[in-house]
Amino acid sequence: MHFISVAHLLGLLLMFLAAAMLLPLPFSLYYGAEDYWALITSAGITFFFGFLIHRLTAFKRDLRAREGFAVVTFGWIIFSLFGGLPFLLSGSISSFTDAYFETMSGFTTTGATILTNIEQLPHGILFWRSLTHWIGGMGIIVLSLAILPFLGVGGMQLFKAEVPGPVADKLTPRVTETAKILWSVYVLISAAEAILLMMGGMSLFEALTHTFGTMATGGYSTRNASIGAYNSAYIHYVIIFFMVVAGSNFSLHYRFLRGDFWAYFRNKEFRYFLAIIGIATLIIGLDTFFNQYSRNFAKTLQMTLFQVVSIVTTTGYGTADFEQWSFSSQFVLLVLMFIGGCAGSTGGGMKVVRIYLLIKFMFGEITRLIHPHAVVPVRLNNAPVPKEVATNVLGFFVLSILVYILAVFTMATMGLDMATSFGAVAATLWNIGPGLGDVGPTDNYAHIPIIGKWLLSLLMLMGRLEVYTVIVLLSPAYWRK
Amino acid sequence: MHFISVAHLLGLLLMFLAAAMLLPLPFSLYYGAEDYWALITSAGITFFFGFLIHRLTAFKRDLRAREGFAVVTFGWIIFSLFGGLPFLLSGSISSFTDAYFETMSGFTTTGATILTNIEQLPHGILFWRSLTHWIGGMGIIVLSLAILPFLGVGGMQLFKAEVPGPVADKLTPRVTETAKILWSVYVLISAAEAILLMMGGMSLFEALTHTFGTMATGGYSTRNASIGAYNSAYIHYVIIFFMVVAGSNFSLHYRFLRGDFWAYFRNKEFRYFLAIIGIATLIIGLDTFFNQYSRNFAKTLQMTLFQVVSIVTTTGYGTADFEQWSFSSQFVLLVLMFIGGCAGSTGGGMKVVRIYLLIKFMFGEITRLIHPHAVVPVRLNNAPVPKEVATNVLGFFVLSILVYILAVFTMATMGLDMATSFGAVAATLWNIGPGLGDVGPTDNYAHIPIIGKWLLSLLMLMGRLEVYTVIVLLSPAYWRK
Repeated sequence: MHFISVAHLLGLLLMFLAAAMLLPLPFSLYYGAEDYWALITSAGITFFFGFLIHRLTAFKRDLRAREGFAVVTFGWIIFSLFGGLPFLLSGSISSFTDAYFETMSGFTTTGATILTNIEQLPHGILFWRSLTHWIGGMGIIVLSLAILPFLGVGGMQLFKAEVPGPVADKLTPRVTETAKILWSVYVLISAAEAILLMMGGMSLFEALTHTFGTMATGGYSTRNASIGAYNSAYIHYVIIFFMVVAGSNFSLHYRFLRGDFWAYFRNKEFRYFLAIIGIATLIIGLDTFFNQYSRNFAKTLQMTLFQVVSIVTTTGYGTADFEQWSFSSQFVLLVLMFIGGCAGSTGGGMKVVRIYLLIKFMFGEITRLIHPHAVVPVRLNNAPVPKEVATNVLGFFVLSILVYILAVFTMATMGLDMATSFGAVAATLWNIGPGLGDVGPTDNYAHIPIIGKWLLSLLMLMGRLEVYTVIVLLSPAYWRK
Repeated sequence: MHFISVAHLLGLLLMFLAAAMLLPLPFSLYYGAEDYWALITSAGITFFFGFLIHRLTAFKRDLRAREGFAVVTFGWIIFSLFGGLPFLLSGSISSFTDAYFETMSGFTTTGATILTNIEQLPHGILFWRSLTHWIGGMGIIVLSLAILPFLGVGGMQLFKAEVPGPVADKLTPRVTETAKILWSVYVLISAAEAILLMMGGMSLFEALTHTFGTMATGGYSTRNASIGAYNSAYIHYVIIFFMVVAGSNFSLHYRFLRGDFWAYFRNKEFRYFLAIIGIATLIIGLDTFFNQYSRNFAKTLQMTLFQVVSIVTTTGYGTADFEQWSFSSQFVLLVLMFIGGCAGSTGGGMKVVRIYLLIKFMFGEITRLIHPHAVVPVRLNNAPVPKEVATNVLGFFVLSILVYILAVFTMATMGLDMATSFGAVAATLWNIGPGLGDVGPTDNYAHIPIIGKWLLSLLMLMGRLEVYTVIVLLSPAYWRK
């Protein structure tokens, strides 16, 4: 492990973070400037430490897998540390734990909040809060499409074979190019959403903050009632559309923008993603049509589709208090939390393609019971999936379930009830935000005990980095020479 | 698929079942004989159909895997059909669905009941109810140790390599011998338990029925308060001991009885089984010591150990209302339900050895992230586990989770709440009996809707036959030529 190089890179990233902290300034000034100094001071402190670390260290040699894991994991941890400064210095959040939780929730695009009254925060701080989503979301795309495949992490290798487009194999100049392409796509789609939201009557401030929450599949709103505060079907459907976009593989968007209009529908994962949204909307829609929305078809469709898309893409925006829905509908949402978006999107969860491979693998095993000597390779888009990828997906599944069980148990020992424990762990480990029970869509995480908040922060990080990355850092083999 | 041979075997099995129905007669006569005719008539009807089917068919050729699956699955289904006759004819249970549920629960050694007042039933019927456990338990041992490995099902192949003792590879005369040995061990241990229970003050009737419930890890009692009705620490500890015995691999018992006294402790699965019991007792004990049993050490140990062993062995006997325990303790019980007993025992659940292999496999995947070219074979008791067995265990895990999710959703659509849905599915799919919520230790399954009862009956069958066996019968590939 070459700590000097890792620190060198982290210092550089901190200087970028400091620059980002200045972006909310125009809004701060326009809306009264109460948080002006908090933002500038935070940026100053962050830049100072970044500069210091960067100068005292040096980049000595090429990154290997080990250093890659460390940069990624510590990067997210340190970003959440410094990123919480504006909250603390402006007095918006008084406890260090809460500020860390809120910032980690932002950068990991989770959207779980400890704030009880969001609307009383100054506008610069609110802009910064939503901006952490957007920065995190951008980081994830680059991470998952350009860097993780190189590190050999997770099912991410899957679409390396799949997508001949902008996916690089090595940390060569080609990765820089890939990152540029993806960032451009991300900025372009974000701009489109912000413009469409402004056409629906939102101010620039509201349009940008909600675009950040959508495109990163984050979920932070500037309103206490989340998207439910906007009584406009147009705005709801615009956000639904862009949540689906954000939950899809970004390399498909790139190919689409390059003129390959059928890229989406040749992609099996995307087709299943749409099918899952359709089926879940149908199941919950039938239930809520009769029991919640007074047999109003348009309202049922809008409310159900919004909530299904918001949960399966792991955004977490709310327009309905789904805790009023029947347990069967809530259970469908819980399953959607596990599934998550597509690989290479900003969404969390297991990812659709992994679920698909798990089920294919399982059917292969059933076939082998009948024909013991049959060789049943798992295939995806007409190509066989390499054995290592298949076992990696299985390992990821087992590991996720294990982490889930241990985390629920730990939350339960703090006195939380069944729905809250199951919900809080699912909502943070899969980067959704609102859960069930006492952390449901109309509640927040303020009342969770301090140790619980740190555990949930760790789960958000694990979820964001596909569990393995964090676990690897905790394994003795990693630290051995 | 050779239906004639399958039917021929099923006819033979039905004639055995008819004979078994006569075993409760002495108790019926001794305690007032009110259910005398119900038992004789049921035996008569069962024998008639068995004889008829057997005579009209013939055994044309050797069993292959396909026919094996069919005999096993249809055998359990038909046994539950005819085995319910005494309940219906004696008027103890009036609905056909309930009688089927109760009998399937008996033969699969689940122990879930639809009866609200057990003590009002005539003694012959109660004896028959408990006897279904014992017959089912016997069937399972033979199935899992002698027949399933031949069919290539599940992790059962694991200890084929493990246990050089009484495990056969083919349906040859050697299987008959294996079956005889195992049945002898089963009868011998059962006799020992019955004698020890009688020494604790139980009547022959009580001792036998509770022995049936213990040795089969079934859980039917003749008392409404289950084992809680016996205010004797001696009886509780005798039953704890034999639940552990019943949850262990029976081939280890055989080797022990042959003089190999260290057989247990050379076996990794058994050591982990004991460790799981110890850790769970410690966790729950600490919680209940302060919150439930007024800091009474002896009572805490007895109550906690009993409940932990009862759940992890999937017996389901109760001495405490664990719904009064905290959610964290209940969650530990829920996890124990999933784990279950050892392979080759009468217990249900995933089985300890499978959980062990899943975790080993997962750690292997983590090592491979750091050393991508490392070959990390999964090992058990110092021998590498064959690749097919490892993927089979993984497939079993994925399949189980999938069945679990679908079943919980279906139960939820019937209006059951979260705890009841999660608990009922876990308690039947893993053959435990009592669940959580409205099917908890002080409740029963009487209030579950009819469709729910049939679904839970199917889950009991799936759990008993290690899920795959039933799923295989439902797959198109099975029925293709």
